[in-house]
Amino acid sequence: MFKIISLKNGLDNVEGFYSQGINAGLKQKGNDFAFIRSEKECDISAVFTSNRFQAAPIKHFKKYPKNFKSDFILINSKNANALTGEKGIEDIDDILKHIKIKTTNPIMSSTGVIGYRLPKEKMIEALKKFNFDKKESDSTAKAIMTTDTFKKELCLKVILKNNESFHIASICKGAGMINPAMATMLCFILTDADIPKNDMDKLLKESVDNSFNTISVDGDTSTNDTVFLLSNKMSKAYNKDAFREALNILTKDLSLQILKDGEGSTKVVAFEVKNAKTREDAKKAATSLSNSLLVKTAIFGEDPNWGRIASTIGASNIDAKEDRLVIMYDNIKVYDKGVNLMDKNTEDKACKIMQKESFKIICDLSQGNFSYTAYGCDLSYEYVKINADYRT
Amino acid sequence: MFKIISLKNGLDNVEGFYSQGINAGLKQKGNDFAFIRSEKECDISAVFTSNRFQAAPIKHFKKYPKNFKSDFILINSKNANALTGEKGIEDIDDILKHIKIKTTNPIMSSTGVIGYRLPKEKMIEALKKFNFDKKESDSTAKAIMTTDTFKKELCLKVILKNNESFHIASICKGAGMINPAMATMLCFILTDADIPKNDMDKLLKESVDNSFNTISVDGDTSTNDTVFLLSNKMSKAYNKDAFREALNILTKDLSLQILKDGEGSTKVVAFEVKNAKTREDAKKAATSLSNSLLVKTAIFGEDPNWGRIASTIGASNIDAKEDRLVIMYDNIKVYDKGVNLMDKNTEDKACKIMQKESFKIICDLSQGNFSYTAYGCDLSYEYVKINADYRT
Repeated sequence: MFKIISLKNGLDNVEGFYSQGINAGLKQKGNDFAFIRSEKECDISAVFTSNRFQAAPIKHFKKYPKNFKSDFILINSKNANALTGEKGIEDIDDILKHIKIKTTNPIMSSTGVIGYRLPKEKMIEALKKFNFDKKESDSTAKAIMTTDTFKKELCLKVILKNNESFHIASICKGAGMINPAMATMLCFILTDADIPKNDMDKLLKESVDNSFNTISVDGDTSTNDTVFLLSNKMSKAYNKDAFREALNILTKDLSLQILKDGEGSTKVVAFEVKNAKTREDAKKAATSLSNSLLVKTAIFGEDPNWGRIASTIGASNIDAKEDRLVIMYDNIKVYDKGVNLMDKNTEDKACKIMQKESFKIICDLSQGNFSYTAYGCDLSYEYVKINADYRT
Repeated sequence: MFKIISLKNGLDNVEGFYSQGINAGLKQKGNDFAFIRSEKECDISAVFTSNRFQAAPIKHFKKYPKNFKSDFILINSKNANALTGEKGIEDIDDILKHIKIKTTNPIMSSTGVIGYRLPKEKMIEALKKFNFDKKESDSTAKAIMTTDTFKKELCLKVILKNNESFHIASICKGAGMINPAMATMLCFILTDADIPKNDMDKLLKESVDNSFNTISVDGDTSTNDTVFLLSNKMSKAYNKDAFREALNILTKDLSLQILKDGEGSTKVVAFEVKNAKTREDAKKAATSLSNSLLVKTAIFGEDPNWGRIASTIGASNIDAKEDRLVIMYDNIKVYDKGVNLMDKNTEDKACKIMQKESFKIICDLSQGNFSYTAYGCDLSYEYVKINADYRT
């Protein structure tokens, strides 16, 4: 018994939060530096990269005591401050102490090229340019972009049956290095809901598993991946089921936005593996499909070459039998338990489906009752171009 | 105390073996159909794909009794006869019984598109065109090519200290779908050495692990991968150490030929991971590097972006510390235990190394004593083009 509606202007709707993005000279043009702050101290839940070499901002965050509260995040793009050792962490402290307003346990978050120290002086100088009373979700969302071609933001308003309401809003970035177990992605989720810290931790983890962790652009996992959830409780409203549903809609939507913006990608494909013996098997097969270069290039070529789908499932080392496997493109069956159905008519229909911007590839293993859907995109000339020239 | 020399004309040197490749109309032009046969029955060792969906020819092979002897292999390209069920196996028997000479336990081997029945009538008709007394390594090597741009063959003559000698020669194919745990590759190794069957099995497995299983073009593993070793013992000569060494030279050379011909690849790179805590760790890190899209595109772009190397190692889920890691391009150190050494001078040197056709990327983990080298290639526009249009 609650209603969820979508609002424009992203973060600006959330009570007590302020944000702005500016150019600090890290990029030649465009925003590259931003803050997010809250009037009141916030509880924070975070999910970080599984990469062994976590970037300096993540190590800096982890130095605060468990369950600390904060009211300030400083964010930069263009430089990841990763693989920069102790110096990288000291740089963060040096920069944060120059913020011109009072802050509690300020956090930093970075994305960009790995292995280079932050241009500290430039950033300290740029701190003077912020107006800390601004609500500018738009400029903030743009400041965290790297190879992204569009900003990613969303705000949901949740109206409870007693007419109380709260907001949950997010900006995020990510386009390449996107893999299950997160990605080169930063995601900042703000809420004014009166949510207990325990619920925050639990619901965020659940939600990330079912959204960001199901997508893959290129199978690489970065040093900086972070999803933050900050709550300042200022709306005084909360309902657990409503919050869960809104959070899931939000993270699913943003993860599909990332995939749609996957470097050089022209299509988003859902790989649904059905009736596997275990959930682990379903997941392994689905993510093998979303990561296979041969599958990705066939999708780019709009070629319903189902042999590559079958071969990838066979190579994924799960329980599967070729006389039980069924393969479909959306509702068109192309392989049915040992029989190739690919006549001229079926081929035409499958080709038509592959020309769409998004479609499903369904593999029914007929081995058990477990399913998993992984989301992926095609591999185009453009991906190679973007990543061959990234640093220049 | 033995000498190994390389001879021209591949398989033709091996005593008692005959082979020929012709066009059977599976491809519009070029050879697509071949045989290899021996005057005397051969012992056979084989290593097959780890793909769950093994192609019909592999299933057909496995129906013969253990340690069976054979004197005939029939090979086709363009059609893999995979995911074709029981019918696919029956097709093989139908074709093999039309061979116009007496054979013992004939074997079939196929490569090409997955999921389609063999064009049986065409192939039975074409069987009439073979001349079974030919020694034509060249036409045979060409008949097994799919996306290969050059034929791959090699013959070694081993001269023992008593001046006895034997030959070991091979043709193979493979250019894409190449991954540790084999690849879309077929490899036929023939020898006239008087080698016991036990040695054959043991030495072949060892040799494949250290050659074909260390290379990766695109991380995909096919349904048809096969390495055969056939011995007819006709030279009457044998020495185990000499055979092992010659076999290792042969398989290493052929695996690097495959990599050099990797679809659209312009460079071959050795990823050497040193001083890992376990061999498993070294292998995992090295193969993660050779399979990473971000590493492969940076190599294509000749960009010494070592951050992607470090990030990939961190993501590979092995024991590694950023303040112990050292990264080198050939002899140029770019990252040294927490310190980025990439000044203008170092960058110029590293760029120059990356312009070469082949070079090494060395990652010293300083964690233990185990090493592993994986071989990979870059990812180019051409790879995408080849694989987007494969079936047409």
